[in-house]
Amino acid sequence: MHSDSGPMGEFDLIERFFKTGSASNSTLSLGIGDDCALIKPLPGEEIAITSDMLVEGRHFFVGTDSEQLGRKALAVNLSDLAAMGAKPLGFTLAIALPAVDTQWLESFSKGLFAVANLFSCPLIGGDTTAGPLTISITAIGSVHPEKAIRRSGAKIEDDIWVSGTIGDARLCLAALRHEIKLSEDELKTVERRMHQPIPRVELGLKLGGIANAALDISDGLLGDLKHLLKQSKVDAEIFLDNLPKSATLQKQDPAIQNQFAASGGDDYELCFTAPVKQRDVIQEISKALKLPLTRIGCITAKQNEQSAIHIIGTDGNVIGDADAAALLKSFDHFAQ
Amino acid sequence: MHSDSGPMGEFDLIERFFKTGSASNSTLSLGIGDDCALIKPLPGEEIAITSDMLVEGRHFFVGTDSEQLGRKALAVNLSDLAAMGAKPLGFTLAIALPAVDTQWLESFSKGLFAVANLFSCPLIGGDTTAGPLTISITAIGSVHPEKAIRRSGAKIEDDIWVSGTIGDARLCLAALRHEIKLSEDELKTVERRMHQPIPRVELGLKLGGIANAALDISDGLLGDLKHLLKQSKVDAEIFLDNLPKSATLQKQDPAIQNQFAASGGDDYELCFTAPVKQRDVIQEISKALKLPLTRIGCITAKQNEQSAIHIIGTDGNVIGDADAAALLKSFDHFAQ
Repeated sequence: MHSDSGPMGEFDLIERFFKTGSASNSTLSLGIGDDCALIKPLPGEEIAITSDMLVEGRHFFVGTDSEQLGRKALAVNLSDLAAMGAKPLGFTLAIALPAVDTQWLESFSKGLFAVANLFSCPLIGGDTTAGPLTISITAIGSVHPEKAIRRSGAKIEDDIWVSGTIGDARLCLAALRHEIKLSEDELKTVERRMHQPIPRVELGLKLGGIANAALDISDGLLGDLKHLLKQSKVDAEIFLDNLPKSATLQKQDPAIQNQFAASGGDDYELCFTAPVKQRDVIQEISKALKLPLTRIGCITAKQNEQSAIHIIGTDGNVIGDADAAALLKSFDHFAQ
Repeated sequence: MHSDSGPMGEFDLIERFFKTGSASNSTLSLGIGDDCALIKPLPGEEIAITSDMLVEGRHFFVGTDSEQLGRKALAVNLSDLAAMGAKPLGFTLAIALPAVDTQWLESFSKGLFAVANLFSCPLIGGDTTAGPLTISITAIGSVHPEKAIRRSGAKIEDDIWVSGTIGDARLCLAALRHEIKLSEDELKTVERRMHQPIPRVELGLKLGGIANAALDISDGLLGDLKHLLKQSKVDAEIFLDNLPKSATLQKQDPAIQNQFAASGGDDYELCFTAPVKQRDVIQEISKALKLPLTRIGCITAKQNEQSAIHIIGTDGNVIGDADAAALLKSFDHFAQ
């Protein structure tokens, strides 16, 4: 059945592109090829599970480099594990492909396994089928119950922190849409941010027991933060000038800088809250990981029935509703 | 943002159709709404994980009743857990929808939760997005390492068993394609088999420690069995006349009966192997579950490099290559 030039069966596909190349780890008892994979949980730990789906034309452009796509598809799921403070154990891949394109598959699996191996996170199972290009990954992690960082744990007076810089993936999108012109070097830099997000797994692991709440920024800081506030039943004050921006983004018009940093999606940095007394510890983590961690605001008591973000402008005052609305324009797959 | 008539955001969708209606169970520490779900493993047990993807026009017809689709999408994953002897703990759903059709969603979630509640298997997380209708489910289960039924465990002289009857879903497909004419009652019966497969979860749980190997029949008995034989490095003898067929299928031409039972997919019965000494125990399980369990053959030593199925016809002889090839025509998403 197996053939390079002729039609290729589903099982050959799995064997050829996905069964090899994957790192294993000590928790995996049974990998690809059975009805289920089996994972041996670490003693005393809970299992963290997250699923994401990427659809061509929606989450990535038609013709996106498949190696980058492979990287990103797994990275966004590991980012969810990171936001929970969980250690990756393995992942499943369900993929619909319009045709068997061996070059595409080779490159996709290369990207996928580059990230998998970086985090010792083996492919443990999945499904391949014909259909419009759609990638669905479920990542499995492990976390001690006392170190799981939930969205609901933010406390009044907590600092709000963001890792790395935010807004570059949105800047890349603007450039690819020809709304903003970037130099070749700048474009390369922001394309890397958009296509090769780095899941903050090590940071998430170090924040367990230190952060009170966390999430990863996939749809935009303000929009994502709102979910955290809602679940924690608190408000937040955000200092607009404190949002961490890359040198590339800082060259843009200030209004663009603010909008992209505040609501640009796809950066996959972590936003977390932690008690004021943890500031030194967090700075040490930042140093150890060589990863900037920036205080961007604080958690405040809820003023109304709905949790709210009070954005503080350069003058120290809360910015007006219209300005806030412009910043809050977050990404929503159906509301657009 | 939430509105019945206006556009509906992704988060409202999740809230409205998928957050409610799901059973919980004692292993679930954190359900929908955070970066990850958290499951507390049962002491000493391993975690079983399986993923399936269903694409409109490929795995189900355009316009398929969405309640049935919801049922089936989860059932086929629970069937994989059953084949491993694992107890369902929860599942994630990633779904791409061409549009927000509230009636479709209501009906889909009704079917989904009917199966979820039947097996105390809560929805623990997922992703909704716009895109061509695609449903990707990952089911998580729990199994004691010594009771996990792997495909690789079949031993020479094991009996080969099949649960229930096989071939009805294939008969339904033939009727829907107008290749075979069925009465209205017959069509209803086989449609239920095709659209509402019953995952053999209780059977799988009872077979742990008794069966040596198992899988669920999704692509057709002979094709699926080959995977089991390959992994167990054995051959099999299958008695064609012993394949369990429903009263409806038995009304068809004998050649059709044999072909549909031998290679018709989508029945989701279990095929398992067990030592001869377990026959009485297996008959007792059959009685307790009110589920026919039929011996259809036995495991034999491998004769060549590749594992093979030797099909025994009515005359007691191995049937010829051409006849076997006709029976072996199994379903393969890409090879068709």
